[in-house]
Amino acid sequence: MPDHHPVDAAIAWVDAAVHCLGTEDAPLHTARGRVLTEPMRALESIPGSDRAALDGFAVQASASFGASAYNPVRLPLIALAAGDALPAGTDAVVPLELAEPDGQGWIEMVEAVVAGDNVEHQGAIATTGATLVPAGTRLAARHIGLLTSAGLSEVPVVRRPRVRILIAKPAKAGTWEDSNGPMIRAAVERDGGVIGETLAVEHNQMAIRAALVEFGADIVLAIGSTGPGSDDHSAAALAEAGELAIYGLALRPGETTGLGRTVSGMPVVLLPGAPAACLWSYELFAGRAIRRLGGRGPGFAYRSREMITARKIVSALGMTKICPVRYGVGDSVEPVPSFVETGLMAAVDADGFVIVPQGSEGYPQGARVTVYLYEGC
Amino acid sequence: MPDHHPVDAAIAWVDAAVHCLGTEDAPLHTARGRVLTEPMRALESIPGSDRAALDGFAVQASASFGASAYNPVRLPLIALAAGDALPAGTDAVVPLELAEPDGQGWIEMVEAVVAGDNVEHQGAIATTGATLVPAGTRLAARHIGLLTSAGLSEVPVVRRPRVRILIAKPAKAGTWEDSNGPMIRAAVERDGGVIGETLAVEHNQMAIRAALVEFGADIVLAIGSTGPGSDDHSAAALAEAGELAIYGLALRPGETTGLGRTVSGMPVVLLPGAPAACLWSYELFAGRAIRRLGGRGPGFAYRSREMITARKIVSALGMTKICPVRYGVGDSVEPVPSFVETGLMAAVDADGFVIVPQGSEGYPQGARVTVYLYEGC
Repeated sequence: MPDHHPVDAAIAWVDAAVHCLGTEDAPLHTARGRVLTEPMRALESIPGSDRAALDGFAVQASASFGASAYNPVRLPLIALAAGDALPAGTDAVVPLELAEPDGQGWIEMVEAVVAGDNVEHQGAIATTGATLVPAGTRLAARHIGLLTSAGLSEVPVVRRPRVRILIAKPAKAGTWEDSNGPMIRAAVERDGGVIGETLAVEHNQMAIRAALVEFGADIVLAIGSTGPGSDDHSAAALAEAGELAIYGLALRPGETTGLGRTVSGMPVVLLPGAPAACLWSYELFAGRAIRRLGGRGPGFAYRSREMITARKIVSALGMTKICPVRYGVGDSVEPVPSFVETGLMAAVDADGFVIVPQGSEGYPQGARVTVYLYEGC
Repeated sequence: MPDHHPVDAAIAWVDAAVHCLGTEDAPLHTARGRVLTEPMRALESIPGSDRAALDGFAVQASASFGASAYNPVRLPLIALAAGDALPAGTDAVVPLELAEPDGQGWIEMVEAVVAGDNVEHQGAIATTGATLVPAGTRLAARHIGLLTSAGLSEVPVVRRPRVRILIAKPAKAGTWEDSNGPMIRAAVERDGGVIGETLAVEHNQMAIRAALVEFGADIVLAIGSTGPGSDDHSAAALAEAGELAIYGLALRPGETTGLGRTVSGMPVVLLPGAPAACLWSYELFAGRAIRRLGGRGPGFAYRSREMITARKIVSALGMTKICPVRYGVGDSVEPVPSFVETGLMAAVDADGFVIVPQGSEGYPQGARVTVYLYEGC
């Protein structure tokens, strides 16, 4: 039978059992979303020599001395794109909009420039050895651009967690549709994991146990057959295949979540088969484990914000409850029908969610609460 | 020579020239991030019959009448997982934590339940034909879970934009490293595009023109050789291959951006070769076009927020300027060295950016400004 462990104990177990994976080199053009394991430093000064900081015309600044609308100065047209090295004999760049080409190889300037104007000096972006991007950065297009332009082509990043998904077929015979696999697969991808294998397993302890002891993954998620009552084959199988550390949580939805590891030490999360419970068990524990394995922040993939309750939010004392909420007027949120009432529809109807901890019966109207926002994630 | 078109004109051109692509069916397990083209409706009522809303024990509510701590009531143990159908003769579910199994096939209840307690009634989530997920939704794990559990296996989504990238090799012979391709590729992927082909092209008008007229993509991004001066082969090539609608913007960085289309009507964005200008030209115009093609919101991939300037932000009148900023104390931001000064390093050092429009010389200290936040994107 599942117990009623506190959610905090399950989170603490994940944090103690699951650690960041090792490093591998990734080509920069595939590195978006990956997490750097070492600071990337400039191999040489950037730029290597003085160059145009913007598109314009190279000039010798001293020759523009005295230029004005009443006294335009004519200089030879030397067009440069941003990044072009300054030709010998020039020391400033005039922006395109501040000089008029006459169509005969000259520009006319109506304002003097000073030596160094719009010039990116050698080493201005970085001196040799300076940090370009710090360790732990999750790489976005702009980081990839900077590192590529600094002459790098691959970077050391945390290896992507390989995730094995086992799905217990229902006990009853007949046609069977897996209603959780696609959802969990999408969530694993969002969190940076790679699905190694998705395997439908017969609904009995021996079959589940045999599937658990296979190798080649960093974590196993086993969906379904987590109890209660006589339908707890996954929990029994994990207890035999290694260690069932935590089984049953004071959490709604997600009561029959299980956590443990195989004899080889690979973490295993048992996700309930009911879709809303499966999702929340994933978000709180399996997702956290995968995010930790991949070097990301362990918290939710959702941004949080302090907001005000427009209506009271109720919960049962002794249970951590995930409460779906919708935006109200101004900076407020109000509850929508719960996961118990409308299953996953609650997550689709909601703009986000509030977590009421085990020791609370909820929040009165007008309370300040932390709201996690879906915002398309 | 590039002109100084207003940024607004270029945005208006993109919005007029580029439209959402057609529909294709995608299997739900690959549909994360895709945009629904039709509302998804329930094929039959969900659930199809009364079922347990949470893990617990099925009981006949009337049998629990009068139960209390002083008068516990014993009932047969019928354990259910959330989602299990209620067995005949039962009409309520007792949560796991409110009943104690005695290990001999009975539970002991200390609180009465009412018929329907913790029961998900037939049709409670959706009646036949009710909308489950509206058109235009960008699908996340929770939508995929709801649609899968409603019996769907594929969904109609906007086709992913196929993006062709042309990179003009530098004019000078010798070894050559593409410093923009990986960055733009990462940004295209972030915006939902698929890179069809990345092609390095000789640095001359004829070669670029020939590459522009190939088919098989929804948009072409041509990087480099956008001018100014004699190095405007891309612009000249596009003018010959179709229409060069806009060439040269009052934008920093990104002055030599070009926009147009081939004779077959395929949109083409000319991105400057300098990395920071290339990135901003992408973010403002190419990215907008790709997001429009794919049915996403056309705006930046970044969340925006009103914040206060801790120091003044300066810009030249007549130019739209992208100003990188960093978080200051409280709800404030302060400028960091500009893209002109430190190139892409400015984007890596910054927490976000502020756009100073063409008609402004910037913002004084203490001004309220719209800040676009990177937040790891």
